[in-house]
Amino acid sequence: MSAPKTAITPTRADDFPEWYQQVIKAADMAENSETRGCMVIKPWGYGIWELIQQGLDRRFKETGHQNAYFPLLIPLSYLEKEAEHAEGFATECAVVTHHRLEAVKDEETGKTKMIPTGELAEPYVIRPTSETIIGAAFSRWVQSYRDLPLLINQWANVMRWEMRPRMFLRTAEFLWQEGHTAHETAEEAIEETRKMHKVYADFLRDHLAIPVIPGEKTENERFPGADMTLTVEAMVQDKKAIQAGTSHYLGTNFSKAQDISFTGREGSVEHAHTTSWGVSTRLIGTLIMAHSDDDGLVLPPRVATQQIVIIPITPKEDTRDAVLASCHALATTLRKDCKFHGEPLRVLVDERDVKGKKWEWVKKGAPLRIEIGPRDVESRKLCLQRRDKPSNDKEFVDKEDFLRNVTDILQEIHDNLLNAATAFRDENIVECSDLESFHKHWKQDNPGWLLTPWCGSSAEEDALSKEHKITVRCLPLDKQDEPEQACLVTGKPTKLRALWGRSY
Amino acid sequence: MSAPKTAITPTRADDFPEWYQQVIKAADMAENSETRGCMVIKPWGYGIWELIQQGLDRRFKETGHQNAYFPLLIPLSYLEKEAEHAEGFATECAVVTHHRLEAVKDEETGKTKMIPTGELAEPYVIRPTSETIIGAAFSRWVQSYRDLPLLINQWANVMRWEMRPRMFLRTAEFLWQEGHTAHETAEEAIEETRKMHKVYADFLRDHLAIPVIPGEKTENERFPGADMTLTVEAMVQDKKAIQAGTSHYLGTNFSKAQDISFTGREGSVEHAHTTSWGVSTRLIGTLIMAHSDDDGLVLPPRVATQQIVIIPITPKEDTRDAVLASCHALATTLRKDCKFHGEPLRVLVDERDVKGKKWEWVKKGAPLRIEIGPRDVESRKLCLQRRDKPSNDKEFVDKEDFLRNVTDILQEIHDNLLNAATAFRDENIVECSDLESFHKHWKQDNPGWLLTPWCGSSAEEDALSKEHKITVRCLPLDKQDEPEQACLVTGKPTKLRALWGRSY
Repeated sequence: MSAPKTAITPTRADDFPEWYQQVIKAADMAENSETRGCMVIKPWGYGIWELIQQGLDRRFKETGHQNAYFPLLIPLSYLEKEAEHAEGFATECAVVTHHRLEAVKDEETGKTKMIPTGELAEPYVIRPTSETIIGAAFSRWVQSYRDLPLLINQWANVMRWEMRPRMFLRTAEFLWQEGHTAHETAEEAIEETRKMHKVYADFLRDHLAIPVIPGEKTENERFPGADMTLTVEAMVQDKKAIQAGTSHYLGTNFSKAQDISFTGREGSVEHAHTTSWGVSTRLIGTLIMAHSDDDGLVLPPRVATQQIVIIPITPKEDTRDAVLASCHALATTLRKDCKFHGEPLRVLVDERDVKGKKWEWVKKGAPLRIEIGPRDVESRKLCLQRRDKPSNDKEFVDKEDFLRNVTDILQEIHDNLLNAATAFRDENIVECSDLESFHKHWKQDNPGWLLTPWCGSSAEEDALSKEHKITVRCLPLDKQDEPEQACLVTGKPTKLRALWGRSY
Repeated sequence: MSAPKTAITPTRADDFPEWYQQVIKAADMAENSETRGCMVIKPWGYGIWELIQQGLDRRFKETGHQNAYFPLLIPLSYLEKEAEHAEGFATECAVVTHHRLEAVKDEETGKTKMIPTGELAEPYVIRPTSETIIGAAFSRWVQSYRDLPLLINQWANVMRWEMRPRMFLRTAEFLWQEGHTAHETAEEAIEETRKMHKVYADFLRDHLAIPVIPGEKTENERFPGADMTLTVEAMVQDKKAIQAGTSHYLGTNFSKAQDISFTGREGSVEHAHTTSWGVSTRLIGTLIMAHSDDDGLVLPPRVATQQIVIIPITPKEDTRDAVLASCHALATTLRKDCKFHGEPLRVLVDERDVKGKKWEWVKKGAPLRIEIGPRDVESRKLCLQRRDKPSNDKEFVDKEDFLRNVTDILQEIHDNLLNAATAFRDENIVECSDLESFHKHWKQDNPGWLLTPWCGSSAEEDALSKEHKITVRCLPLDKQDEPEQACLVTGKPTKLRALWGRSY
């Protein structure tokens, strides 16, 4: 028997990276542009980002943060001040050196050429991250302990000159938020770092249906200049890891370089303890790789641009108006009377006169599809199709029942995606305490993750990482006080565990 | 008698431009940065932008537009293709020529220097506007008349290397939205241009309490490459004009340069008719100059980050808890039970233990301030102060009455601001039909606007403009079919009227 035909070619099993590109294309989410390494985010993809923004922004404001906006261009002198930070980070970045173009006509071809002129005395870089420029502002804003805590977030575009771009996961320009906070004491700053780490883990679970492993990065994997980096690590369907969000406790490293100092309660001058934390459009790449299938994108309802797509079935002209009226009436009722997590439902009636509409919405990952035909108008039934079930499953339901249950159905779809991703992840994390099995594990195709007892040095970690093209994804927060076991490399007893995997 | 002391020095009458800077500073909205011509938008200013975004975005979506995101960097070749556009526009812009920094230690000083390396074969400019790069995408997306209309909007940062920056009104980097649409016919594109023009006029009136004059730009003042530019012109308190938003019908000029073509209904290949339209953070500058007074910022309630600020008066420690509890209870009721234009009220309880809180909120323009002291807790009264009334006015009102009337009060504040701005504008527009009075008018200090019969040429318009440092702000839409009068310069009978003024 031949395999059933799928909407996406190749399948995940055949070629995962190419499947990923094809899902993005089939769902019409984004495309490459002629600007090197940059993509155009199309409406269906950008709609997901808008919903991610709304959901996170509400959580940021609920935890006392305010948004602000800082310049795109960073003077080189700022990076020089923060040399450690810049060396680890900002070397591959776009540099602005001129501020004018001159149009010159080529005498031979008659074509206009644009020539950069107006060289700047001091060049600028396009922000790869904003620690330095926000730090300069904090240095002005913070004078006394009364000015603390300072809890700021920025939604912005940033740019890193990536050599191997991949849509959403790694692009030269990307969209993100970056939280930057300053505090009076180390304790308060660490509490903030942990709080925002938890906000990310909760958001990924509750909005993106992605179960993450929250943990701490080892010194090797920390953000340059951070005293502590917390991460939320997601496993996607090829068993690789994606670092979906990070939260850094920066100690007084940045505040010393940038002079964020204040007069303390006892009158002495002290340096603020700072944090930074961020997630980006990379979340959309993670989302695609976590849930989608061989028929295309699968969207959890809370981040679906349209949660319900109603498709009128109009075989005959004389019943067309009645069918359309019934579809729009249903859409209006759903929008007006039903709420999902406090928000009105997002419902589209797809009236277009084109073929293959159903499969278009399968590929775009709309959580619920509803077909209404002439007979359904009379019987007050509708044909329900769910994206978390096989694409050809249909269920005929009573319209009134559906209206009563629709939010439960959406929640069930969310829960099914979350449960499937959790089961997949748990199946693919194996505990391993001896070095021989460890080495053997990474020789498999698509190996899962390993959890090992660990108290090794950075050098030992580095050697294993290079040998197998893996990294310690994190020291999971809930595995820091385990029964003592012999460390994988040192053999010394340790209560800590490290989680290893390949990653994007 | 000496003049009453004001919170802002200088006053509007003494030095309007400096007053403007001081209002921004006193309200803690923004500040200059070390990046040339760029500002930091602080939370109180950025909050206004977030509310402007929300209000406009809803109106854009209601009119069928979808958001997308396009690259920040534009290849020079795109600008070369669109030479007319580039010459009129994009010559003063930031040019990216390198993609790497190298940290070099200065042997003598021991300091780290950053040197640009990795020169790009083709430089990029930071978008001054996105017609070219969005046009390139439209050229890929539009194949058939079925793909039209294409209705896209982008929220983004853009950059123009301004020589005389002024916070919010003219900064090198600014935030804006740019709508870009493509249509099958000229009629549809013109209808879109007018529709979005009306969206802007309505939004300014209903959210910012700014009465604009909607009109058409003369050929001299049109967007380079446009067949028609519509504008909304606001008068601010020094009687200058601010172009607050524009909507352009681009004909097929851009679609020909960028090959946005499609197979039409009859099978022939045609060029799309395109539009673009935008507003920016300049709206915030307009808002400040339109409403604020010598005590600081005045915010219309719909764009106030906090609409109501509750200030506990706690002279004695033993009644402090009761006062705070009463303040928070009121805030909770206001947030939960009252809505203004469908949105929950934005209410802050300012518990900080600092002096001068009342004046801080006056300067920040909070529409309503409420003071609650120990006696008010018992009497269930509160002390109400409105930003649209003199800063020392107080009104003691019953708490229950206030809760019943609060949305009416907010609407009244909005209406008062709108009415005052409308009256001021109408007083300062004078009809003028002879050249002698015209010349005399502009010799006054702070002249208002003149409305004149007009059918002159571009050259004649240009001569008058240069002589008096004025421009035709627009040909008002509601003055295009007036009784015939002799044109100001040609003497020929004309039904058209032109509105002249000085501008920012």
